[in-house]
Amino acid sequence: MPEYTAPLRDMRFLLNEVFDAPSMWAENARLAEVVDTETADAILEEAGKIAGAVLAPINREGDEVGSKWNDGKVTAPPGFKEAYQTYSEGGWGGLGGNPEFGGMGMPKMLVGQVEEMIQGSNISFGLAPMLTAGACLSLNAHGSQELKEKYLPNMYSGQWAGAMDLTEPHCGTDLGIIRTKAEPNADGSYNISGTKIFITWGEHDMAENIIHLVLAKLPDAPAGPKGISLFLVPKILVNEDGSLGEENTLGCGSIEHKMGIKASATCVMNYDGAKGWLIGDENKGLNAMFTMMNYERVAVGIQGLGVAENSYQNAVTYANDRLQSRAPTGKVAPEKTADPIIVHPDVRRMLMTMRANTEGSRAFSMYASKWLDLSKFSDDVETKKYAETMVSLLTPVVKSFLTDLALESAVAGQQVFGGHGFIREWGQEQHVRDLRITQIYEGTNGIQSLDLIARKIAANGGAFYKIYAEEIAQYCASQEGNPAMAEFITPLKAAVANLTELTDWIMLQAQTNANELGASSVEYLQVFGYVSFAYMYAMMAEKALEKEGSEPYYANKLATARFFTKRLLPRYLSLSASVKGGSECLYEMTADQF
Amino acid sequence: MPEYTAPLRDMRFLLNEVFDAPSMWAENARLAEVVDTETADAILEEAGKIAGAVLAPINREGDEVGSKWNDGKVTAPPGFKEAYQTYSEGGWGGLGGNPEFGGMGMPKMLVGQVEEMIQGSNISFGLAPMLTAGACLSLNAHGSQELKEKYLPNMYSGQWAGAMDLTEPHCGTDLGIIRTKAEPNADGSYNISGTKIFITWGEHDMAENIIHLVLAKLPDAPAGPKGISLFLVPKILVNEDGSLGEENTLGCGSIEHKMGIKASATCVMNYDGAKGWLIGDENKGLNAMFTMMNYERVAVGIQGLGVAENSYQNAVTYANDRLQSRAPTGKVAPEKTADPIIVHPDVRRMLMTMRANTEGSRAFSMYASKWLDLSKFSDDVETKKYAETMVSLLTPVVKSFLTDLALESAVAGQQVFGGHGFIREWGQEQHVRDLRITQIYEGTNGIQSLDLIARKIAANGGAFYKIYAEEIAQYCASQEGNPAMAEFITPLKAAVANLTELTDWIMLQAQTNANELGASSVEYLQVFGYVSFAYMYAMMAEKALEKEGSEPYYANKLATARFFTKRLLPRYLSLSASVKGGSECLYEMTADQF
Repeated sequence: MPEYTAPLRDMRFLLNEVFDAPSMWAENARLAEVVDTETADAILEEAGKIAGAVLAPINREGDEVGSKWNDGKVTAPPGFKEAYQTYSEGGWGGLGGNPEFGGMGMPKMLVGQVEEMIQGSNISFGLAPMLTAGACLSLNAHGSQELKEKYLPNMYSGQWAGAMDLTEPHCGTDLGIIRTKAEPNADGSYNISGTKIFITWGEHDMAENIIHLVLAKLPDAPAGPKGISLFLVPKILVNEDGSLGEENTLGCGSIEHKMGIKASATCVMNYDGAKGWLIGDENKGLNAMFTMMNYERVAVGIQGLGVAENSYQNAVTYANDRLQSRAPTGKVAPEKTADPIIVHPDVRRMLMTMRANTEGSRAFSMYASKWLDLSKFSDDVETKKYAETMVSLLTPVVKSFLTDLALESAVAGQQVFGGHGFIREWGQEQHVRDLRITQIYEGTNGIQSLDLIARKIAANGGAFYKIYAEEIAQYCASQEGNPAMAEFITPLKAAVANLTELTDWIMLQAQTNANELGASSVEYLQVFGYVSFAYMYAMMAEKALEKEGSEPYYANKLATARFFTKRLLPRYLSLSASVKGGSECLYEMTADQF
Repeated sequence: MPEYTAPLRDMRFLLNEVFDAPSMWAENARLAEVVDTETADAILEEAGKIAGAVLAPINREGDEVGSKWNDGKVTAPPGFKEAYQTYSEGGWGGLGGNPEFGGMGMPKMLVGQVEEMIQGSNISFGLAPMLTAGACLSLNAHGSQELKEKYLPNMYSGQWAGAMDLTEPHCGTDLGIIRTKAEPNADGSYNISGTKIFITWGEHDMAENIIHLVLAKLPDAPAGPKGISLFLVPKILVNEDGSLGEENTLGCGSIEHKMGIKASATCVMNYDGAKGWLIGDENKGLNAMFTMMNYERVAVGIQGLGVAENSYQNAVTYANDRLQSRAPTGKVAPEKTADPIIVHPDVRRMLMTMRANTEGSRAFSMYASKWLDLSKFSDDVETKKYAETMVSLLTPVVKSFLTDLALESAVAGQQVFGGHGFIREWGQEQHVRDLRITQIYEGTNGIQSLDLIARKIAANGGAFYKIYAEEIAQYCASQEGNPAMAEFITPLKAAVANLTELTDWIMLQAQTNANELGASSVEYLQVFGYVSFAYMYAMMAEKALEKEGSEPYYANKLATARFFTKRLLPRYLSLSASVKGGSECLYEMTADQF
């Protein structure tokens, strides 16, 4: 029943009009070689077809049937293996990959849009290519030439899938205390032993091999996070000539029963002296992981956005179809027993909230992707450095803020359906269950928030923040002669001023109270998010004003920007006030009194 | 693995110290006869035992197995039938029932606490007695003496269960357009034909008969809500002598597959000329329904509270057990690999938020129950009228605000568990899925909000609101000589002033824009909720301050009140600002442009 239509118009507006990616691509040798407006257009179009015609139709059954574990083997739900084949044959697995090893070398600004469609139409499926891409990123950045040549081409092609093995039963956030061991062999390989949990698509039947990237400790490694190394551990060993050899000594002990993303197998992986190879330097495993972290975290934000967009589309359809009661301003459909519920102000409020969340999220994730691209592709040292700063600062916000808003959107998208939203056949409740995980995995949103305020802001005395605030200030200054923009610029300036003041306040408190950063972190990140969205909406409104009247799309964009500014942006007021409530009220009770 | 402990200490504090129910009971002839402090204490104690020892242990399996439909028969999950028997044999089904027909006549202030335990430990189970009690309320208030004598005693005893049949496939909120028909027979009975959906426990094997209260239209009934009548339709016809006769011509066509409350059967009920009897007057069916609405809506709020309390308890246990990273202020458990996560500020923030939501909800629901009791039992005309006003005003707030906060709490309670919160075996994700329905059924929270601002406030020019605001003002005035209370009274006064101003603003806008009430309704209700909680926390703090030092409970209560005041109460600022964003930005886009 539920359908998915790729939001191509909005993607193209952002890509071509707001952020003018084609100009950036044209100016860069490595990008000019692989992408231009037409290529990008064709890629978006094709990805939209796969999402709508291949992945969305198997999403509901995937949830109902789930992945099945039997004696160590995992079978993906009906249609998944075929979809994986279609996806791989289309070359999608190598979209952002290194061309030296068969990847297409596409920028994240484009890859991110494809991710939104894949994840939005079927997040359980999307996790397989997403984890593979993440493993490829780490391998490409830190692996030896030999490892890269041996594994990357088949991973980009989808012949082999990838998995990331970090978590253990006793540790998730605190990776410093992992127990999985790596014993060196004479031939340069290692024997890996231990148990990993929560391994997404750690085992399945969609690809002929699965390449695990496993965190483990060498003998005599220092305690804590500085004693962790990263290993490549294939499910099936690969011979010298690249053919598949014998099975490695690892196995999937079971899969989890979860709230959502049920089609994806979440595996317990047991390593029993499995053969592996070091990626990067000894004891630098977390570094090698962090290479892919910024990409993956942006991708998780995009997952939330994608699923929320899906929920929004269904909610709009239902709100136009369902007849119930009359509009407060008088009958709209007098020939029917009742008016479509989209006439009711509160239904409108829910739909506009979803729309504003989703369009803001799309813009912000593309803005962050722009900096990811410039940090990777730019040949200019200053630009690269600036871009790295922005990536570092914005990544936790994209991951957390987009997934928090996605939950709000999906809950609203379910509420629009009334009782039917609670029934599985309508598909809206699945979105809530599926995307709830995006707030948890890849570093919980609480951890992201602490990363933002502690490592990205307080640790450098607010230097990164000042750079961002200055950029926004310059943008605001550039709009001063544009009276039509005042309705967006004035609230944006007020929101930035508040955020700057709040940032200083927190850093001051933190000088005398070590709990202050953590106590303010989640709400601080949300204030940061709303300010960022106000910046995005101002930039979008600017372009929309230029073309208002030429196409309803632009008037709709302005309507959404106005709704955001009037009804959602004010949320920073309460969040800031709550931060100023301080940390002491969290510690009045001792732990045993809870 | 998850356990449930009834929060008896907090219930007794509210019952005996904050609201001093025993004094009210002693002063009232009908109540003095049935309840005093000792009786209430014993009832709470026993209900806590059933919740913890009988209902909580079957909650997880109930979710996994669900109710099963087979050829029109529904089998409840393992243990449910036995639990229903235990529950009924304990006399719990008649707790709030009319003593004339075998009920115990207990006040809602006490019944509400029992409901919290039953619903909180197992909401799917709790729905069966809850719907039965609702049906009894309508029957008792509007049924003929004959019907009451014939049905009430067996419904109170649990021998027969009850169900409420309102919704049809094409209508839920808009009951005016129902199609189920009632044809009068010569013997005074009616033949009921039509299809009802979403009928909670409409069919099951826990009781020997099920008494349906069905909304239907008589031939020639006026169109719309004024043409609806209420009928009693038993699953099995009851003979003159009270014995069971033949099966009625009604049946359960299927049950729904839902997001949560899976143990409870949500039935499609088909009526094929089934024999029924009119309850109350012809075409006054909605009136007869509304009698039970205020009770049921408060009960739904209490469901949210109960489940949130359950989630909180598990989150606290996990936060004390799970070791991960070190406290920002230095190691707390140096002998362990890491500190329990309850040391981290953001985990504290989540736990305190849950605690503040839950304790505020408990107080507010008991405050509303006090007015329900006075409106039912008081012999003083003025008191009764005042109580009716308060019930009318507060009911939608209890239903919506408590269930909205419950979702926030359960999501936080899941987040505390990190990845484990997403795994079914830990039980935390079930709470999120289960209580999500409380925001939807019994009138969606959007509908409740419209009820508050339109019917309960704007329709009387704010008269009801002024009565409530005056009560709070008098309370604040009474605390003026109490400097220790200033930290609660000052913010409360500011919050009330803001709400009064906002109420006036909305009513003014509504004079010229019919969309304004609906556009502001949800956020307005939340502002109303935060103000009400601030009032509750002030009253609780007052009593806690009197006994601070005598027992850690009181210091904990003050800590929770301070956390609420500093970190949660400020939310009204943004909500109010959003309301003032107005309704126009909801209608800039036409329906076809969404």
